[in-house]
Amino acid sequence: MSERDEEQAGLVCPVPNDRYSRILLAHGGGGRLMHSLVQRLLIPAFDNPALRVGHDGAVLDVPQGRVAFTTDSYVVNPLFFPGGDIGRLAVYGTVNDLAMCGARPRFLSVGLILEEGLEMATLERVVLAMAEAARECAVELVTGDTKVVDQGNCDGLFINTSGIGVVDHERKVSPGSVEPGDVILLSGDVGRHGIAVMAAREGIEFDTTLVSDLAPLTSAVFALMDAGIEVHCLRDLTRGGLGGALVELAETANVGMTLRESHVPVSEAVRGACEILGLDPLFVANEGRFIAIVSKGDASRALAIMGAHAGSEAVAHIGEVLGRGTGQVIVRGALGVERPLDMPSGEQLPRIC
Amino acid sequence: MSERDEEQAGLVCPVPNDRYSRILLAHGGGGRLMHSLVQRLLIPAFDNPALRVGHDGAVLDVPQGRVAFTTDSYVVNPLFFPGGDIGRLAVYGTVNDLAMCGARPRFLSVGLILEEGLEMATLERVVLAMAEAARECAVELVTGDTKVVDQGNCDGLFINTSGIGVVDHERKVSPGSVEPGDVILLSGDVGRHGIAVMAAREGIEFDTTLVSDLAPLTSAVFALMDAGIEVHCLRDLTRGGLGGALVELAETANVGMTLRESHVPVSEAVRGACEILGLDPLFVANEGRFIAIVSKGDASRALAIMGAHAGSEAVAHIGEVLGRGTGQVIVRGALGVERPLDMPSGEQLPRIC
Repeated sequence: MSERDEEQAGLVCPVPNDRYSRILLAHGGGGRLMHSLVQRLLIPAFDNPALRVGHDGAVLDVPQGRVAFTTDSYVVNPLFFPGGDIGRLAVYGTVNDLAMCGARPRFLSVGLILEEGLEMATLERVVLAMAEAARECAVELVTGDTKVVDQGNCDGLFINTSGIGVVDHERKVSPGSVEPGDVILLSGDVGRHGIAVMAAREGIEFDTTLVSDLAPLTSAVFALMDAGIEVHCLRDLTRGGLGGALVELAETANVGMTLRESHVPVSEAVRGACEILGLDPLFVANEGRFIAIVSKGDASRALAIMGAHAGSEAVAHIGEVLGRGTGQVIVRGALGVERPLDMPSGEQLPRIC
Repeated sequence: MSERDEEQAGLVCPVPNDRYSRILLAHGGGGRLMHSLVQRLLIPAFDNPALRVGHDGAVLDVPQGRVAFTTDSYVVNPLFFPGGDIGRLAVYGTVNDLAMCGARPRFLSVGLILEEGLEMATLERVVLAMAEAARECAVELVTGDTKVVDQGNCDGLFINTSGIGVVDHERKVSPGSVEPGDVILLSGDVGRHGIAVMAAREGIEFDTTLVSDLAPLTSAVFALMDAGIEVHCLRDLTRGGLGGALVELAETANVGMTLRESHVPVSEAVRGACEILGLDPLFVANEGRFIAIVSKGDASRALAIMGAHAGSEAVAHIGEVLGRGTGQVIVRGALGVERPLDMPSGEQLPRIC
């Protein structure tokens, strides 16, 4: 009796894990099992008209103008951590990258790479978290792909999300728009995501529960944009942390920057953990923090708007853009001593996103 | 001496493999090494204005109307096989999915997941193959992401490509547009990709060299569209082969279909390999073949157009769309016996795309 006959005879339950508790290679094979995984788990979870068409891609109506397009793969280990999971991360992360381009996120794609033997219940949790995160961000998961690799050839579950957003204004939010004299605002305390994931992975317990800062940044960003703040550049702080983002931006825009270290908010818990582990919080990863580089004249208004916004109450004015041509970030330490900031060669904590 | 100092002192060669012959975890860490990999290998290889902006995503001008959006991850093993490689596959595969939506492919994203220890020379070969394939298909690789996972947690190299195409006509090319009475045309012989990859992986040698059918399908598709052929649905044959595609389409469109088995072109080499290995060529994967479901009145014109087109000279009229409501494919065998076609539960050959 083929699975199809069983299904027609009403023998198969409507969710896949009633039948298979683990992912098989055949779930990625383009046959009946993959079809069933897609039809019973993925399409109902992400339900929307584009997906129901059942074709090789989604055909979407996009308003005239510019669109933003971005991609990210997620390989975080462990899959679930305090304050989030790989599914939520994969949605917020790509939504945030679109917001950083000044684009309103609209559509996401989902590419799943599953390891043979992955528990179906784990996949379901991740998929449902993605669906919930997408609803929260008002984006639709319109097209997808599932591959399965043999046991030992992938670490449980990797996700790629790519996204399309709509740029509904004339401004150019990008490193090239950064101007000497601009101010650098940071939306909140840094380092919680990296430390929370690392602690979960290594089984380290701190006095206080450290929760990832993982969050969508769209509403804070569009509060700024909609208020007409002259936003020149935005950058969310992920791998490489605040320090990595500033160095990269200074180099790309070819401007000097100062960073007032004592103005950077760091929670007691992160400060303590970094001290114990010998990490620099400036370079620890975040997943719900961004910097906004805005014209000096708009600084206090931007601070007020961000500060009134859930998630960026701890906004801080952390630095300035200097002249063109140096491409360097200078850190002014608490004692007034200045030093150049450079990226470390790699991330202090691997597999955090 | 930091890598940056070395670079400034002129000690670092312009391509990364002169310095690191293998991928390190730090190449995915958001720090100096990742920056260098992106700046020295990826951006020069895929060079285009959107990529040079150096932001979290690409902002693109898209003409008014509908866009198609699709995603695919590629986990083929081995990375190089007769007739292609994972890089070329990742470009053509996503380009083909866009073409199947009736969209002209324009922009791709690239998400790389690399295994620590991967040879830099291997990555370079793959990246250069992607760049060449993109030029050939007139698409731009405008945004990307690189992750590195620790050794043993991914099989060398996985690639995700997502794509955006532009639908510059009013037609709706999708399963929902299939009409009873339509004819089913197949663009060439089936099964070469699956057998070629499998033979390369298992080290099996056949009498004749079997080369994958891997190819972009855009020009054949747009030859049909531009000639005004009433194309109702297109589907490229990948995992699951011709059989899988037909069963899926018949179910999605909820129509009956007939398949005349003797009309399906199969090369002598594939026929022989399938006989030895006990495989059904109807379900072996392809990466450069598609079916076009067109209105009956346009059948002979469509056959002529496809037949005149490099890559689809062996076009065949392989079946018809019957009435609505059954969702079943009936195969008419060489002896006139009819049998229902069903998908196998998984792919006969895993990791072929």
